[in-house]
Amino acid sequence: MEVIEKTDGMQQKAEELRLAGKVLGFVPTMGFFHEGHLELMRVARKHCDVVIISIFVNPMQFGPKEDLTAYPRDLEGDLAKARQVGVDIAFVPTVDQIYTKDFESRVSVEKVTKHLCGLSRPTHFDGVTTIVAKLFNITKPHLAVFGQKDYQQLTVISRMVKDLNMDLQILGVPTYREPDGLAMSSRNSYLNAEERKSALCLKKSLDLAREMVRKGETQSAAIKKAIEDLVRSHPYTQIDYVNLCDPFTLDDVDTLTGETLLALAVRVGKTRLIDNCVLGKAEKR
Amino acid sequence: MEVIEKTDGMQQKAEELRLAGKVLGFVPTMGFFHEGHLELMRVARKHCDVVIISIFVNPMQFGPKEDLTAYPRDLEGDLAKARQVGVDIAFVPTVDQIYTKDFESRVSVEKVTKHLCGLSRPTHFDGVTTIVAKLFNITKPHLAVFGQKDYQQLTVISRMVKDLNMDLQILGVPTYREPDGLAMSSRNSYLNAEERKSALCLKKSLDLAREMVRKGETQSAAIKKAIEDLVRSHPYTQIDYVNLCDPFTLDDVDTLTGETLLALAVRVGKTRLIDNCVLGKAEKR
Repeated sequence: MEVIEKTDGMQQKAEELRLAGKVLGFVPTMGFFHEGHLELMRVARKHCDVVIISIFVNPMQFGPKEDLTAYPRDLEGDLAKARQVGVDIAFVPTVDQIYTKDFESRVSVEKVTKHLCGLSRPTHFDGVTTIVAKLFNITKPHLAVFGQKDYQQLTVISRMVKDLNMDLQILGVPTYREPDGLAMSSRNSYLNAEERKSALCLKKSLDLAREMVRKGETQSAAIKKAIEDLVRSHPYTQIDYVNLCDPFTLDDVDTLTGETLLALAVRVGKTRLIDNCVLGKAEKR
Repeated sequence: MEVIEKTDGMQQKAEELRLAGKVLGFVPTMGFFHEGHLELMRVARKHCDVVIISIFVNPMQFGPKEDLTAYPRDLEGDLAKARQVGVDIAFVPTVDQIYTKDFESRVSVEKVTKHLCGLSRPTHFDGVTTIVAKLFNITKPHLAVFGQKDYQQLTVISRMVKDLNMDLQILGVPTYREPDGLAMSSRNSYLNAEERKSALCLKKSLDLAREMVRKGETQSAAIKKAIEDLVRSHPYTQIDYVNLCDPFTLDDVDTLTGETLLALAVRVGKTRLIDNCVLGKAEKR
């Protein structure tokens, strides 16, 4: 596995590989790998000749009061894990390589960013779309792989790629979970033992909603109420949002008629966790 | 010369040409070609294996009260001229091809857009950077050529390309002028005979400023005052701005120490014209 730190070096390498006819797969990450990350890399491995990952904790997608400095990091461990799943190139730039002194550009998606996490994290998605646009230009992939756990992120990036005619395919991979159902996240490492138990309320909420829909419930308000009660019965929890919405536009849905996204964000202690599923006929995107 | 109307077709063609090792040059235009446009194509012809132009009057860069519908068009004439200067591919999309129904993305450059034309046209440059980012992704050029007449546009696009790691080179070409000095512009076609005479005040202003600097003037205020007097002595004119600023950041300059951009925008009748030059030692960028 080749480790590249410089933007120019990565871009030149990617161009050479494309000219040699290779199909490039890309998995952008913020590091501190768990099985969810490795699964994305395995999917890329399966579809592509060359798998490129990036490890970059992107300051632009953290709000001023968020956990940028506390965000967990383990570069050596990450590189070892990436090697094991067959990654070919790890792009690991410094902040200076990515944001030069006079940096003043921005890529934004205007509507789908205004829902869900965009409400409590108003600058977050501009940070995501800007870094992802940059990374796509640097690594020149044919296919980029994202987790469905960050459902809104996947929606926003798909929208950006289509709107800006970026010539690549976006693939979403189902959420990877711990044996007890907790969605894998680097932020799970923040949880103490008590909080870890309470954190199960997210997955339980998805299961509860699926069960209600199976039994014929069609009203978002009833599902939200049941989930709110469930979450509140777990200590250390504080709901950020529980939302039922269109899986593509993320506009609120009052009465379930077709596939509907259930997305929730809950603080457990100081740790903000998210999870989601698509309710309705096919029950996934 | 191949004429392509579909976004997908253009993108696929560009990718094929890149994979075949060709160097692609690109000139984005809004059509109604004059010698200034053709000069950009000739420059691209000189540097590249394949010259691609686009003709697209981009609604997103016009303000609500601007001249979108009146903007002059002559597709057949344009294609004939492009053929004559050796263009290989003309990309001529419809508005629907470029802006699909759910379009909601935006590329913006935040600081250099806030000066000069950005003051009276607050949404203009977002429209420019968004369409140019899209066109770059569709035509995949190694080199893109722009006129220095739209100096701020060239600055904004150069900034975007650098900030977003777009893998291409931007080349600025000196302003092409009528024999009497008027900078060529598609909007010159709006001028009646009287206005056409008054329009010369822009080039005369540049000459006056150069002469003042040659004689030792270093104060922006004095130069601006002289230009304002000169412009006002021409009938049908109304100054939008006369500005002396840093050629890279476009921040105002009070005392000329190094190269300084002189940029002006003047309404002549209802037609808004712009011109610029770089004052100082080298007298061009």
